[in-house]
Amino acid sequence: MNQQQLFEQIQKKQSFLCVGLDTDIQKIPRHLLDTSDPIFSFNKEIIDATEEFSVAYKPNLAFYESLGSQGWESLEKTIMYLKSKYPEIFVIADAKRGDIGNTSNLYARAFFDKLDFDAVTVAPYMGEDSVKPFMTYLGKWVILLALTSNKGALDFQFLKDKESGDQLFESVLKTSQNWGTIENMMYVVGATKAEKLKEIRQIVPDHFLLVPGVGAQGGSLKEVAQNGMNSKCGLLVNSSRGIIYASVESDFVEKAKLAAKDVQEEMSELLKEAGLV
Amino acid sequence: MNQQQLFEQIQKKQSFLCVGLDTDIQKIPRHLLDTSDPIFSFNKEIIDATEEFSVAYKPNLAFYESLGSQGWESLEKTIMYLKSKYPEIFVIADAKRGDIGNTSNLYARAFFDKLDFDAVTVAPYMGEDSVKPFMTYLGKWVILLALTSNKGALDFQFLKDKESGDQLFESVLKTSQNWGTIENMMYVVGATKAEKLKEIRQIVPDHFLLVPGVGAQGGSLKEVAQNGMNSKCGLLVNSSRGIIYASVESDFVEKAKLAAKDVQEEMSELLKEAGLV
Repeated sequence: MNQQQLFEQIQKKQSFLCVGLDTDIQKIPRHLLDTSDPIFSFNKEIIDATEEFSVAYKPNLAFYESLGSQGWESLEKTIMYLKSKYPEIFVIADAKRGDIGNTSNLYARAFFDKLDFDAVTVAPYMGEDSVKPFMTYLGKWVILLALTSNKGALDFQFLKDKESGDQLFESVLKTSQNWGTIENMMYVVGATKAEKLKEIRQIVPDHFLLVPGVGAQGGSLKEVAQNGMNSKCGLLVNSSRGIIYASVESDFVEKAKLAAKDVQEEMSELLKEAGLV
Repeated sequence: MNQQQLFEQIQKKQSFLCVGLDTDIQKIPRHLLDTSDPIFSFNKEIIDATEEFSVAYKPNLAFYESLGSQGWESLEKTIMYLKSKYPEIFVIADAKRGDIGNTSNLYARAFFDKLDFDAVTVAPYMGEDSVKPFMTYLGKWVILLALTSNKGALDFQFLKDKESGDQLFESVLKTSQNWGTIENMMYVVGATKAEKLKEIRQIVPDHFLLVPGVGAQGGSLKEVAQNGMNSKCGLLVNSSRGIIYASVESDFVEKAKLAAKDVQEEMSELLKEAGLV
């Protein structure tokens, strides 16, 4: 999927919502545990309930890996279901991978060939040759960690380079722009630092940004939109727990739908204010 | 496994060799493709042939994930085989994971609970709360990326902090020492920068270091030992391709054994020179 196609989906649905499929076997409604694949059953129900209001889904790999090969099977089924039933949906592997070149090649194969993800999140620490292999697939994307939303972001991401004066996350944004284009790179920018979004938009005006941490992690959607939107929207805002665990009872489908609809309605207003729909 | 037990294994085998199980379906001998699980069959043969000469094994997860849930099954079988047949072997998941706290918790569950790895490699970019969850398991280890052996290491790992003057990899070494102890943390230090090992030993004199890149990636074992050894050896040196693909013909078992034996003999000499055996 290219940038224009993604923007068209955003316009069509008046939404830039990404639903995080952080599916935890210990948190899903009990009655699903009787199905042959509870994780997949849950995802399927959540996807069908929320697809109308969202343009992207983002399974976090940790939730699947914690169940071993069975979890990996649930992931495979989820992606196949998404891609066959909703081919216009953008699907992100939140995997935070990154390794030496020939190994990153294999991760790319895992997520783009073996599975049909549109994008994968990648950690920048190992530099260019750990990131570039993910960008050799036409229509596929790297989403590089720049500024994360957790407390540990303070440990290294704000260290200031002696020579340029740039903080590490700024160096990551600047240096990595030479590795790809606005058609195959996005950045992760934590929403708990909404005031930082303005600065980041100076460095990467045209890239899409994946913003986690709105809702449960405390960011404000309005602030994110005001500081981060560009002429193609340029934002995917993720919500996980606030939607998928809106209820853990038998009404979870209905409640997830309502939660996604709420977010979509707010997004629709923000897109209208920006003159994008 | 604690540090003393690892050192005892090193003394017993006169080896600090870690064999990298970077098992690529496209590179293993063709006759194995007829077995029900070629990846596991290959690993089993390689392990049996080299165990006498090595203290650790390190599957790189990318190789398994690139085969989807089947690859994950091969990995599960490999770990179970290792742990049941050779319980004194140290097994490292070369996964380079790292995510926000509650998600890193799930990765820890994946590698330490669901699988019985002794250690997992972790990327430092997201800071303390992304690393600590791996250290809550008694006898299990985090191996944090500090200085990697690839070209991309130059992109960010050498950026100099304005305030302290430390390069990023030095900041990682210094800051992360507060997160764990010499009993639950090691560091990845690329051997192609053997001259850097001396500097690194000033910062982390007592930690174990995992050194990739000897052999195929060009480091010298002698230099690594001279600059990196401490009173408990303090080194695990990895070799992957040089051993597991010493031959890709039907004599691969024998050739892998000889390659591992060669490295072990050199290591034995180096340990003797250092007065450690």
